[in-house]
Amino acid sequence: MSTPEVRILAAGSALPGPPVDNAALARRFDMDASWEQWVDVFIGTRSRHLAVDLESGDVRFSLAQLGATAAQRTLDAAGLRPQDVDVMVMGTATPDQLMPATVNMIAERLGIDEIPTYQLQSGCTGAIGALDMGRQLLRTGEYRTALVLGGDVCAKHFDVDFDLRSMAPTELVNVVLFGDGAGAAVLTTEPVADSALVHGVLNRLTGLGRAPGQVVDWYGQSNRRPSTPALQEDYKAIEQLVPGMAVEVLKELLDRLDWTDTDVDYLLAPQLSGTMTDRIVQELGLPGAEDINCVAEIANIGNAAPFVQLERVLPQMAPGDRAIGIAIESSKWIKAGFAIEKV
Amino acid sequence: MSTPEVRILAAGSALPGPPVDNAALARRFDMDASWEQWVDVFIGTRSRHLAVDLESGDVRFSLAQLGATAAQRTLDAAGLRPQDVDVMVMGTATPDQLMPATVNMIAERLGIDEIPTYQLQSGCTGAIGALDMGRQLLRTGEYRTALVLGGDVCAKHFDVDFDLRSMAPTELVNVVLFGDGAGAAVLTTEPVADSALVHGVLNRLTGLGRAPGQVVDWYGQSNRRPSTPALQEDYKAIEQLVPGMAVEVLKELLDRLDWTDTDVDYLLAPQLSGTMTDRIVQELGLPGAEDINCVAEIANIGNAAPFVQLERVLPQMAPGDRAIGIAIESSKWIKAGFAIEKV
Repeated sequence: MSTPEVRILAAGSALPGPPVDNAALARRFDMDASWEQWVDVFIGTRSRHLAVDLESGDVRFSLAQLGATAAQRTLDAAGLRPQDVDVMVMGTATPDQLMPATVNMIAERLGIDEIPTYQLQSGCTGAIGALDMGRQLLRTGEYRTALVLGGDVCAKHFDVDFDLRSMAPTELVNVVLFGDGAGAAVLTTEPVADSALVHGVLNRLTGLGRAPGQVVDWYGQSNRRPSTPALQEDYKAIEQLVPGMAVEVLKELLDRLDWTDTDVDYLLAPQLSGTMTDRIVQELGLPGAEDINCVAEIANIGNAAPFVQLERVLPQMAPGDRAIGIAIESSKWIKAGFAIEKV
Repeated sequence: MSTPEVRILAAGSALPGPPVDNAALARRFDMDASWEQWVDVFIGTRSRHLAVDLESGDVRFSLAQLGATAAQRTLDAAGLRPQDVDVMVMGTATPDQLMPATVNMIAERLGIDEIPTYQLQSGCTGAIGALDMGRQLLRTGEYRTALVLGGDVCAKHFDVDFDLRSMAPTELVNVVLFGDGAGAAVLTTEPVADSALVHGVLNRLTGLGRAPGQVVDWYGQSNRRPSTPALQEDYKAIEQLVPGMAVEVLKELLDRLDWTDTDVDYLLAPQLSGTMTDRIVQELGLPGAEDINCVAEIANIGNAAPFVQLERVLPQMAPGDRAIGIAIESSKWIKAGFAIEKV
């Protein structure tokens, strides 16, 4: 048996509600214009979509709901029905519940049954991890069509009654940096026209001996509460390490594929914040590559981001066009990337 | 390229602290002898190991700690070093934190780096899901050695100051039914002697249109709290459906492998409670198979259970001996099973 080639047929996404800009956040949290300006300029994230309604504080969207919408849009774009899916793989840091896995609640909404489903617990590299896993499962020859998903809904960590004035800057930044959303892609081993070959996926833990750059905790029904906050980021370490890690991922992918940096037509860079991503794009230094970048509009949506970028780039790609996607997870320092080529 | 055969080299486990019997629970929660007797007889689970110290209420063990111990024991039994591991796959319903994934904190403890790691969010079928995933990754030919893990630590949902007298029976049962622990197995594509061939793994969502039988929720830093309890089980549905699902898994595996029920030398049955598992073993009706069953001593340890069963059965198996393992996840009704043969 020869190892089959894997193609991406389509990608799609779902974002909750209307965009929430920095002015809306400033109004809700009673912050002044200088704060709004600080976010605009120094964070560079202008708006985001939130599962929580900013006025009422109600949670309006679940990850299962967004994931099912994204999946249905992706299947529609690929001309497939839910029944055509042979295996599902999803990545998320913020499942709706610990059990059932959210991927199975998405299957329920799509009417999918009697197939294997997998949900990866993952942060920013989870979309690429799921893509990697979907591709590997197809390469065994056991499945033809994989539905790959990723998404995050931070509602359980987000309150509309946060007191931003009393927050430390590193905590405060989390309120503006992240958005909610879900995305999906369909992979196939069928030699379909108008698809993109997945040439390589890189997905590797690299953090031995290094403290986590991002920690996200959860609480249970026990009254015991940890002394540390639920969200902790080491933004200094992130700023210091992520650009270099992104450059290493790019180099490794180019080496592996025997591509040069002028072979890359589209770059799907890590989606951290508007300013951080701009800096990374510059460091990656691909002068011929168009930057597919949506973090300034929709913020950092974790496991959904690469799918939104794929959704935007795939229709733009002409046969022979090549794209590279990169994600870095600062939790325990994971490098991830993928390379595709339109055929 | 021919698809390589996959073998289990060894399995191991780690359980926290000394066993806690029903008398100890009765003392701690101020319950009388009739309650203790009710647990002994009707639940059939006599003891369990807990990450929470029953006297102080302190959490003494993390999942990362137990997982690393189980992995090290397994690698030692297989005669391998952490550096020999090419990929890690772990299943858990109760990660220590949402990020970093616990599998990566286990890698840190083992000194493992620069490899892909995956953590499946999963319930009782997670060990078999991870085994399945590890096997599929090896079958692509890209890796030689996979470290597969599973485990659960329920400490975040367990308080030593629970008021058992005021609890509904379905809630109360959770206090006695579950234990904490972790397990691991090493898979390889090397044709090593004294190993067990993995003949087939079944892992399939089957719950379309059926309400979840088990829901485990998590809370974030938001003050918003759901109106439903963090743990909900539909024990009537579980009792009604799980035995039949287990029989279906057995039949499907036997059919697929062209084995008859007299070909099975060892049965690794679903580990629910002492009484439920006994009932399932009877319904499975494999008269020639020895029942490898530890649920009465160590309770339901979720994603760790099949590894503990493997740890017990592998040294007992003579060349040609066959074993079948089955797990059913009632969350969204997942069927899972595997078949191995000693070579």
